[in-house]
Amino acid sequence: MKDFKSLLANYKVIFFDSYGVIRNYNGLIPGIRQTFEWLEAEQKEYYIITNDASRSPELLVESFHRNGLTIIPPDRMISSGMLAKEFIDLKVKSGMIAYLGTENSAHYIQHPGLEIIPIQDVSEKNIDKISALVLLDDEGFDWLDGLNKAVNLLRWRTIPAIVANPDGAYPVSKQEVGIAIGGLSWMIEKITGKKFFRFGKPDSQIFMFAWELAKRRYPDLTKKDILMVGDTLHTDILGGNKFGLDTVLVLTGNILAEDAEVRISSSGILPTYICASAVIDNQLDIYDK
Amino acid sequence: MKDFKSLLANYKVIFFDSYGVIRNYNGLIPGIRQTFEWLEAEQKEYYIITNDASRSPELLVESFHRNGLTIIPPDRMISSGMLAKEFIDLKVKSGMIAYLGTENSAHYIQHPGLEIIPIQDVSEKNIDKISALVLLDDEGFDWLDGLNKAVNLLRWRTIPAIVANPDGAYPVSKQEVGIAIGGLSWMIEKITGKKFFRFGKPDSQIFMFAWELAKRRYPDLTKKDILMVGDTLHTDILGGNKFGLDTVLVLTGNILAEDAEVRISSSGILPTYICASAVIDNQLDIYDK
Amino acid sequence: MKDFKSLLANYKVIFFDSYGVIRNYNGLIPGIRQTFEWLEAEQKEYYIITNDASRSPELLVESFHRNGLTIIPPDRMISSGMLAKEFIDLKVKSGMIAYLGTENSAHYIQHPGLEIIPIQDVSEKNIDKISALVLLDDEGFDWLDGLNKAVNLLRWRTIPAIVANPDGAYPVSKQEVGIAIGGLSWMIEKITGKKFFRFGKPDSQIFMFAWELAKRRYPDLTKKDILMVGDTLHTDILGGNKFGLDTVLVLTGNILAEDAEVRISSSGILPTYICASAVIDNQLDIYDK
Amino acid sequence: MKDFKSLLANYKVIFFDSYGVIRNYNGLIPGIRQTFEWLEAEQKEYYIITNDASRSPELLVESFHRNGLTIIPPDRMISSGMLAKEFIDLKVKSGMIAYLGTENSAHYIQHPGLEIIPIQDVSEKNIDKISALVLLDDEGFDWLDGLNKAVNLLRWRTIPAIVANPDGAYPVSKQEVGIAIGGLSWMIEKITGKKFFRFGKPDSQIFMFAWELAKRRYPDLTKKDILMVGDTLHTDILGGNKFGLDTVLVLTGNILAEDAEVRISSSGILPTYICASAVIDNQLDIYDK
Repeated sequence: MKDFKSLLANYKVIFFDSYGVIRNYNGLIPGIRQTFEWLEAEQKEYYIITNDASRSPELLVESFHRNGLTIIPPDRMISSGMLAKEFIDLKVKSGMIAYLGTENSAHYIQHPGLEIIPIQDVSEKNIDKISALVLLDDEGFDWLDGLNKAVNLLRWRTIPAIVANPDGAYPVSKQEVGIAIGGLSWMIEKITGKKFFRFGKPDSQIFMFAWELAKRRYPDLTKKDILMVGDTLHTDILGGNKFGLDTVLVLTGNILAEDAEVRISSSGILPTYICASAVIDNQLDIYDK
Repeated sequence: MKDFKSLLANYKVIFFDSYGVIRNYNGLIPGIRQTFEWLEAEQKEYYIITNDASRSPELLVESFHRNGLTIIPPDRMISSGMLAKEFIDLKVKSGMIAYLGTENSAHYIQHPGLEIIPIQDVSEKNIDKISALVLLDDEGFDWLDGLNKAVNLLRWRTIPAIVANPDGAYPVSKQEVGIAIGGLSWMIEKITGKKFFRFGKPDSQIFMFAWELAKRRYPDLTKKDILMVGDTLHTDILGGNKFGLDTVLVLTGNILAEDAEVRISSSGILPTYICASAVIDNQLDIYDK
Repeated sequence: MKDFKSLLANYKVIFFDSYGVIRNYNGLIPGIRQTFEWLEAEQKEYYIITNDASRSPELLVESFHRNGLTIIPPDRMISSGMLAKEFIDLKVKSGMIAYLGTENSAHYIQHPGLEIIPIQDVSEKNIDKISALVLLDDEGFDWLDGLNKAVNLLRWRTIPAIVANPDGAYPVSKQEVGIAIGGLSWMIEKITGKKFFRFGKPDSQIFMFAWELAKRRYPDLTKKDILMVGDTLHTDILGGNKFGLDTVLVLTGNILAEDAEVRISSSGILPTYICASAVIDNQLDIYDK
Repeated sequence: MKDFKSLLANYKVIFFDSYGVIRNYNGLIPGIRQTFEWLEAEQKEYYIITNDASRSPELLVESFHRNGLTIIPPDRMISSGMLAKEFIDLKVKSGMIAYLGTENSAHYIQHPGLEIIPIQDVSEKNIDKISALVLLDDEGFDWLDGLNKAVNLLRWRTIPAIVANPDGAYPVSKQEVGIAIGGLSWMIEKITGKKFFRFGKPDSQIFMFAWELAKRRYPDLTKKDILMVGDTLHTDILGGNKFGLDTVLVLTGNILAEDAEVRISSSGILPTYICASAVIDNQLDIYDK
């Protein structure tokens, strides 16, 4: 029997998922503020790795701040949108970038020399200038219009298609989920036969992004020095394991305590540890596998 | 070298696909009226087997009539919606049936003793009374609202989910396609993990439906007496072949003449014949394989 | 609270799965003989619908007879192999048929005028004469040689590929499964991109085959008169439901009593009834849904 | 009109695929030796990134040497097996590692303190000690025995399953392919429902591995300084593009010149350049997209 705090002693750097670990549809996970105060006091490095590309890092932390978690600065947020941005910086040299998402999400694809255009504005007049399609968020466009335009754009043009959130759905209340942009991308991919670039957990590029940032502080960092904390087996735990990290599944989000064993054994996705939450002052059940 | 007409001599009953064979986004395929006049004159039995469940058979033929093809009566139309109807008649005994589609498409799920309810009217108040979900058409509901409600309904209730059109997309102009209700169902199925009942070509139940009607006229009918005419490899030709019928691919719809060989060899779906069209007075290239 | 026997009163015809319902790796399900004796005494029509194409109907019942269940005649056995046979009779007019399976399984593809050839004998000399590939059983060939030959045959020739057992695996002992020919076919299909014809439950053609036999005795038979009894949700129950039949899940095979609720709600495949077994003299829990 | 050589001027580091670029089933691609001699003379850094985990880097270059390409040292070879090795080093702390592959392939999973065991030696006696399953090569085991044992091992134990080659098939002659260990893994994954860790192109971890090696020589290296050369769209080009590299498709392997346009537009996987080969003294067609 150990608690989450005692677990942290073995690691120099902690990677956290956001939704289901730090916050959920009700606001902050109760007590999570102490975890980050303790990390600051102990000078432990941490990053928050999220598949949420709906807003810039600044706006993402603003929602923490509004809820009283003011300690986290924007430079600790690593969003899958930042990977989409890196891809565009490296691979899209000219033309217009069409996107599905809110204006806020378009933050990630702004690039000097490239014009960005919401999917609703794609038409016969500009379709030949479009050089990439980026799926950022499930809001900000009419689904009927936007999804049909995205399908026809990919049939008409051979251009890269990027999705900055591989998740199929996300919880919007205790009972309900919402279809995420990743879920919409599955349909577009199957209908068009075109291969998407998917950034975000479990894909290792987002872990590498955080890894390279952490190496700036600790040049001798090894993967054994990092703990990944998440609530979702198929993204946080699968991706963390694949990247070579120790992983801890917390039970404050997608997986209920009573389902954990069945979900792990049926998927074969095995966290290094299981904790009740990422709150450090609780007495927690930890199963060291 | 033979023409479509000479091919017909070998069969007692002809099954036709509708879209891409009889009509397309521009109206009727030029010359197709003569085909049906000839069939009537020769007293050849025919059925039109369609994955279009957006309207009743009466309304489906009305659109032929408006275009001048007045010879086809409603009882020759076999829509995938009729299979959905048969399923509900046999398997749904009570409660409410939620549907995605237009009011016209709801024709297929009306049943004495069962209430039908468009997806937009599903709410916490009635969700526990819903005993089936039926996907009929891509129109008639707001996609954002309707698709999210469909996902949450299937997460909340263990009820049959039926889709009356397995197609992922359909042509809306020479250049463009529209996402079909079948394409939307793929996404819902993947997000929820719930298995859909899919009716319509290539599934054999729709062929069996037509087969049993044809047997009423020809009690000794064998599958060798039937020719399936279609423009789509994955529905018309695959389904016709699997049911044991001879099949003819016509090049007035989904497949262009120059692509036919590649599409056939890469999918492995081999029609018995290829014809330029189902128009009978043309001189046509027919490749007997 | 009802027993399986009282359930039978409502139906004229009973369809049984074989493995997991009548027998398992240990031999007959204890007490199952009385069920068939009672059906004979009551003159109830029954058929055994199996995805086992490894042997002819005669050899399939012989294994029942050896275990003391001598009452079942071969004409009650409907194997998915019989659908493969019907397909070949209708659709393969000439040439050689290559097969994966034992010599016994080749029973189903024998046809006057067609030569059959085990996959191991396919070579450069005869590959151009092969007009169909049929996957019948996981035994009877070396997997390395046979699977590679099957892949290359389908890459080289555009011919129909048929698999007479859609199951991925089957139980060989209380703890172990064996990979079935259906599982092997998934790999060949994915590697080659060629579409297979799959016969056997849950596909409706095997139910239609049994339906047409039963109609010979009861010309006015309706689907409401038939009960499908099976132990597997994805084949017996899904297929029976889709065909429009009432279905009963028995817990003597693939699904343990403690897992039934979870398996049903996570897949969305809902049997009409659940019984402990298909043995009629037991007192059983039946949940009428 | 440019040649491959003039293209190289823009890059500091070149990543090459091996099979289809440097060699094929006939031996070396004619003229490829000059490419590597020129790279050495120009002091250009290069790495060979291969999904071949059948042998150690030393044995992989030995096969180049035997064919007269003696200039490539083992430390330029990056095999997907090295990623499997890194995973085991980081994530498997104790127990036995079962593997599918030859004795040579087992090179990659040797680790002090861990016992390795070929799949054929897995039995009831040792199954509870096995802590990981690694799929390395399609040779070295009987498929019937080994694949069934792998399926049952993953059903019985919740352990990581790793496949060190994501390819489904590989060319063994001008006409024929062989099923690769990646293709076998698809089937095991689908039958068991357990999620595999897949290392090798197009997954970005193998590119990161090469990237970190190249950074040792050029600490200021950016992704714009690297060119990925490959013959396969779904591994070399997709993976290189996703990692942010410029990519060149060469036509000496999987894709014939006449098919390139269709294969690119149907998959949506677009190389930066297309060259006839990676041979530098040829006059080549280069399409700068």
